[in-house]
Amino acid sequence: MTYHVPRADIQFVFEHLVDVPALLSLPGNEDLSSDLLQAVLDEGARYIEHEVAPLNRASDQYPPKKTAEGVKTTPGFKAAYAAFQQSGWQGLQHSSEFGGQGLPKLVGAAFGESMSAACAAFALCPILTDSVIETLILAGTPSQQEHYLPSLMSGAWTGTMNLTEPQAGSDLSLVQCLATPQSDGSYRLRGEKIFISYGEHDLAENIIHLVLARTPDAAPGIAGLSLFLVPHYLAHDQGDYAKGARNDVMCASLEEKMGLHGSPTAVMRYGDAGGDVGTGAIAYLVGELHQGLNYMFITMNAARFAIGIQGLGVADRALYQAEHYAAERRQGPDLARRFTSPVPLHHHPDVERMLQTMRALTESTRALSYHAAWLKDMALHHTNPDQAADFQRQHEFLVPIVKGFATEMVNEVTSLGIQVHGGMGFIEETGAAQHARDCRVFAIYEGTTAIQANDLIGRKVLRDHGQQALACLTPVRATINQLQQHPNNTELAFIAQRLEQACQAYEQAITDLLQQHAAQKPRAVYFGSVPFLMLAGVVLGGWMMARAAQASVSADTEFLRKKFSTAVFHAAYILPRAQAHAQSIQAGVFLDQSSCY
Amino acid sequence: MTYHVPRADIQFVFEHLVDVPALLSLPGNEDLSSDLLQAVLDEGARYIEHEVAPLNRASDQYPPKKTAEGVKTTPGFKAAYAAFQQSGWQGLQHSSEFGGQGLPKLVGAAFGESMSAACAAFALCPILTDSVIETLILAGTPSQQEHYLPSLMSGAWTGTMNLTEPQAGSDLSLVQCLATPQSDGSYRLRGEKIFISYGEHDLAENIIHLVLARTPDAAPGIAGLSLFLVPHYLAHDQGDYAKGARNDVMCASLEEKMGLHGSPTAVMRYGDAGGDVGTGAIAYLVGELHQGLNYMFITMNAARFAIGIQGLGVADRALYQAEHYAAERRQGPDLARRFTSPVPLHHHPDVERMLQTMRALTESTRALSYHAAWLKDMALHHTNPDQAADFQRQHEFLVPIVKGFATEMVNEVTSLGIQVHGGMGFIEETGAAQHARDCRVFAIYEGTTAIQANDLIGRKVLRDHGQQALACLTPVRATINQLQQHPNNTELAFIAQRLEQACQAYEQAITDLLQQHAAQKPRAVYFGSVPFLMLAGVVLGGWMMARAAQASVSADTEFLRKKFSTAVFHAAYILPRAQAHAQSIQAGVFLDQSSCY
Repeated sequence: MTYHVPRADIQFVFEHLVDVPALLSLPGNEDLSSDLLQAVLDEGARYIEHEVAPLNRASDQYPPKKTAEGVKTTPGFKAAYAAFQQSGWQGLQHSSEFGGQGLPKLVGAAFGESMSAACAAFALCPILTDSVIETLILAGTPSQQEHYLPSLMSGAWTGTMNLTEPQAGSDLSLVQCLATPQSDGSYRLRGEKIFISYGEHDLAENIIHLVLARTPDAAPGIAGLSLFLVPHYLAHDQGDYAKGARNDVMCASLEEKMGLHGSPTAVMRYGDAGGDVGTGAIAYLVGELHQGLNYMFITMNAARFAIGIQGLGVADRALYQAEHYAAERRQGPDLARRFTSPVPLHHHPDVERMLQTMRALTESTRALSYHAAWLKDMALHHTNPDQAADFQRQHEFLVPIVKGFATEMVNEVTSLGIQVHGGMGFIEETGAAQHARDCRVFAIYEGTTAIQANDLIGRKVLRDHGQQALACLTPVRATINQLQQHPNNTELAFIAQRLEQACQAYEQAITDLLQQHAAQKPRAVYFGSVPFLMLAGVVLGGWMMARAAQASVSADTEFLRKKFSTAVFHAAYILPRAQAHAQSIQAGVFLDQSSCY
Repeated sequence: MTYHVPRADIQFVFEHLVDVPALLSLPGNEDLSSDLLQAVLDEGARYIEHEVAPLNRASDQYPPKKTAEGVKTTPGFKAAYAAFQQSGWQGLQHSSEFGGQGLPKLVGAAFGESMSAACAAFALCPILTDSVIETLILAGTPSQQEHYLPSLMSGAWTGTMNLTEPQAGSDLSLVQCLATPQSDGSYRLRGEKIFISYGEHDLAENIIHLVLARTPDAAPGIAGLSLFLVPHYLAHDQGDYAKGARNDVMCASLEEKMGLHGSPTAVMRYGDAGGDVGTGAIAYLVGELHQGLNYMFITMNAARFAIGIQGLGVADRALYQAEHYAAERRQGPDLARRFTSPVPLHHHPDVERMLQTMRALTESTRALSYHAAWLKDMALHHTNPDQAADFQRQHEFLVPIVKGFATEMVNEVTSLGIQVHGGMGFIEETGAAQHARDCRVFAIYEGTTAIQANDLIGRKVLRDHGQQALACLTPVRATINQLQQHPNNTELAFIAQRLEQACQAYEQAITDLLQQHAAQKPRAVYFGSVPFLMLAGVVLGGWMMARAAQASVSADTEFLRKKFSTAVFHAAYILPRAQAHAQSIQAGVFLDQSSCY
C-alpha cells in the first residue's frame, strides 16, 4: 500500500485557514516566504513517500529484536533514518541558534503529520528527539547545550524520555529511580523505567536519555523529582571516562504491543549492568534540583502537540486507504439508479457517510492543529509582549484539545477505515487493521485523554473562570456572522445554525462546570472533563470547517466541491455531538450523587 | 486472566426485565421453571469458566495451523469441545423434535453471551452449527433432517455457512459457485468461498457445509441462487460412495486476521482437489431451487442475533477485566479527599466515567437482547396466532438493532477497556487489546452494520410507514409514566426526562426518514440508516435501563446500588446520543445535495 501526502489539502489549510502572511511578516521570518514553506513541504513529501511510507507494513510484521549486539530495528529503518538525518529534517522546526533550520512550528506540524501517516512507528523516534531538544533548550546548562544539541539537531543522536516506572504511570509522584550525587558534580542513577520508546536501537550513534529521578534527600512526591541526562555512550571526556565508553544503562526487554510494532518499547535498567563505567549510570543534572516535573510540564506541551499530530497523520493514512478501496471495489446496485451495478462502494450512502466522517474528523483536526502551531509561532515571534503572551495562552489552551481530540478521533477514523473494507478490513494483509492497532496508544502516552482533560479543565477553564475558554468563541461567532450574510445559500445557513447551536452547548457546559466547581463538587466537574475536551474539539473543529466552507462555496473544481461537501457533512454529523457532550456534563451532579465506586 | 460469568447480572434481567413467568405459562414449557432455567445457566457457567475461559489467551497466541493432516486448532480446544459435546450444549435452544433440549432462546442467549465472553474464537464454531441446524429445520428434506440433524444437534458434527466469494461480499448477486445437476439427483459443486469460519478443523468427526451457488440454467443475480449441502465426509451411503469418503472440498488457506485468531477462517475450494469422489464436490440441494437467498434471509435472523450476543459477551469480558484492574491498580490522589493516595483507579471520576460507559452499554444491550430472545420464544409458543405474529414482528424489528448496536458498542467498550488500563492496555500480555481485536469483525460478518441498518429502514420502518417502529415506544412511554409517579426522587425524574427526550428524537427521526422517503430521496434516507439503528439502540436500551432503575431504586445491597447508579449514568451519558443521531438523520437532504462521491 502506497501513501501520498495530501499536499493540496495541506496547502488549502495554509492558504485559507491559518494566516501565514501575518506570521511571515514578523521579525525573524524575513527569509521565509509562502513559496519557500511549500517547497520545503514538497521536498518533505518526496522523502516521506519514497523512503518512509514503504516501511509501514514491514514495521508491523518485523518488529525490532533484542540481540546480543543490541536492539535491531525493522529492515529498512536504518536507510530511511540515514536519509532523514542527511536532509536535516530533525532540525526543521528548531531554533537556528542551536543548529536548527528555524522554520515555523506550522511547517513542523505538516511535516510531522505526513511522517506519522507514512510510518507512525518510524516517525516516533524523531518526536522523542524533539522532546529532548526542547528540554535542553529550556533547562540545559550552556555546556550541555553545546555538547548535546548539535548532534541531536542533526539527527546523529536520538533522545528518549524516561518518566514511567511500573508503579508510577499517570502518577509520577510514585517515581523511585534514585540519583546519588558524586564528588565531581555528576550523579549515579539506579532504577527501572518502562515504556521507553526507542530506548535502544541501531539508527544512530548515541542515545541521550532524559530520566526523571529522585535525589537521596529529596522530598517525597512530585516536588522531589529532578531531571537527569544519561548518555547511552559517554559523548565526551568527562571525569575519568573516555569518549564512547558505554554507560551503565541497558534495555532489559522489549514489549509485545497491540500495534506500533516497529517502535522498540523498552524496559530500561539504569545502574544494573555495569557497562564500562562501573555500577550506576553516570547522569548529569538538567537545570535545577527538584524542578524536574516543572521542566516536563513546559516541554510536555510540545510533546503532547506532536502526539496529536501523530493521530492526525494516521487518520489521514486510514482515510487515504479507505477512499481508494471504496473507489475501486464494486458491490451492489446504486440506490439512486445513476450508475449500473455493481457500483464502486463510495456510491453507497453509508459508505459515503463513513468516508465523510473520516474526512470531516481528519480535516477539522488538521486545521485546528495547524492553527495551534501557528499560534505558537506567533507567540515566539511577536514583538508586542502582551500579544505574544495572548498567542501563547491561546496555544496552551489548545494543546490538550489537539492532543486529546486528535488521538481519540483517530480511533474512530481507523475503525471506520476497517469497516469501509468490510471483511477485508479484518485481514491483516489489507493494512487497515494496522492503522487501528498502531494508533491505539496515542490517547494513552504523553498523558491519557483524561490527563489532557484534567489539564484543560483544571488549569485552563476553572482557574480563570472560563475566560480563555469563552474567548475562543469570539472568532467562531465572527465566522457565523459571515456565514449569515448568505441567507440564500441553504448549506451555509445550515452550517451557521449548527455551529451556533454547538457554541451554545459549549457555553452551557462552561457555565455548568463553573457552577459545579463553585458548589465544591470536584467529582461532578471531572466526570465532565473528557466530554468537555471532546466538545471543545467538535466546536473549534467546526469553526475551521465553517471557514473551509466559506473558502470553497464557489467551488469550481472537484477538489473544492469535496471541501465544501465535507464542511456540510461536519455540520450534519459531527457538530450535533456538541449538545450530547454538554448534556453529559450537565448531569455530573447526578453521577456524583449516585456513584457506586 | 480468569473470567466469571455475571450470574447475578443475568439473573437480574431474568427477574426484572423480561417476563419469564409469561413465557413459562405457555404450552410447550410445562416442564420448565425459573429454577430450572437458572440451574441450567449455573451449570453452563461452571463449564464456561472452567473449560472455555482459560483458552482465550492461547486462542490469540496459538492460532490454528494448516498441516498436511488438516487444520489443527489451538491447543486445548479439542478437550473443551469434547466437554461441550458431552454435555449436549449444542442442542440447548433447539427443538426437542429433532433431538435438541428445547429450552427457550432466552436461555440460549444467556449461555451464548458467556461462551463468547469466555473465548469468542471458540464460541464461534457452535454459532455456525446453529445456523446450519436452523436452515435444515427450515428447508431440509425429511431425509436430510434425519441424516444430519441428530449429529449436528449432538455436536458430533459442526456446520459452516458459505456465502462470500472474493468478488461477492455484501453483494451476493455476484456469486459464481456453480452446482451442476447429476443423474442421481445430486449436484457437483465447483468454486471458491472465502471467510469460511471453521471451514476446516479437528474438533468434530465431520463438517456440514451449506453453500450458496448457482445452477447452470439459473437467472443472473440473487434470484438464481440455490442452497446446497456439502458434507466434508460423506456421511451415509449415497449413490456409489462409501460412508466416510472424503468429498471434493478442501481448505486452501487460513487468513491472518486482526483478532479472533483461534477461529480458523478458511478459503474453501470446492471441486478442485478430487478427494475420494472424483472432481466436483458432491452436493445436495436444500429446499427448492433458486430459493437459496430466501432461506438465508429467514435463518439469518438467528445468526445475526447470535453475533449481536457475541458482541455482548466480549463487552462483558472487557468490562470484567477493566473493573478488576481499576479496583487493584492504585495511582494518584482522591479528588474528593475521601481516601489516602494513591487510590484505586476507579475512584478517579474519569475512570468511573469509562467503567460506567462500558457497564451502561453492556447492561442495556444485555437486557435488550434478552428481550428480543424472549419475544422469539413468545412467538414460538403463543397459541393465539395474532399475538404470536405480533411477537414475531417485534422480534424481527429488534434483530438488526441487536446485531448492529451490540457489535458497534463492543468496539467502544473494548476500546475503553484498553484506556482504563493506561499503557498496560497496549501491551498484549494484559489481554485488554485482544478483546478489541477479537470483536472488530462482529460489526462486519453476518451483514455489516450498514446491511443491518438497511434491513431496519427498508423492510421494517419504511415498508409499514413507521408503524412498528413507533409501536416500540408504547411500553417505553408506560415506563416513563411510572417513573414520573416518583417526583421526589430526583434521579428517577431525571431518567424520565432524558428518556422522554430520547423518545422525541426517535419520533422526529422517523418523521424525517418518512418525509425523505416520500420526497423520493433514497440517498438522504440511507445516510441516516446507521444513525437510526444506533438511535433505536440507545432509546430501547434506555428503556431497559429505566426499568432497571425502577427495580433497584430502593437499593439495599451494593449490587442494587450499582444497578441504580448505572441506570442513572445511562441517562446522563448514553441517552443524549439520541438527539445527536436524530440531528444527523435530519440533515440527510443536505448531504444528498452536496454529495461529492
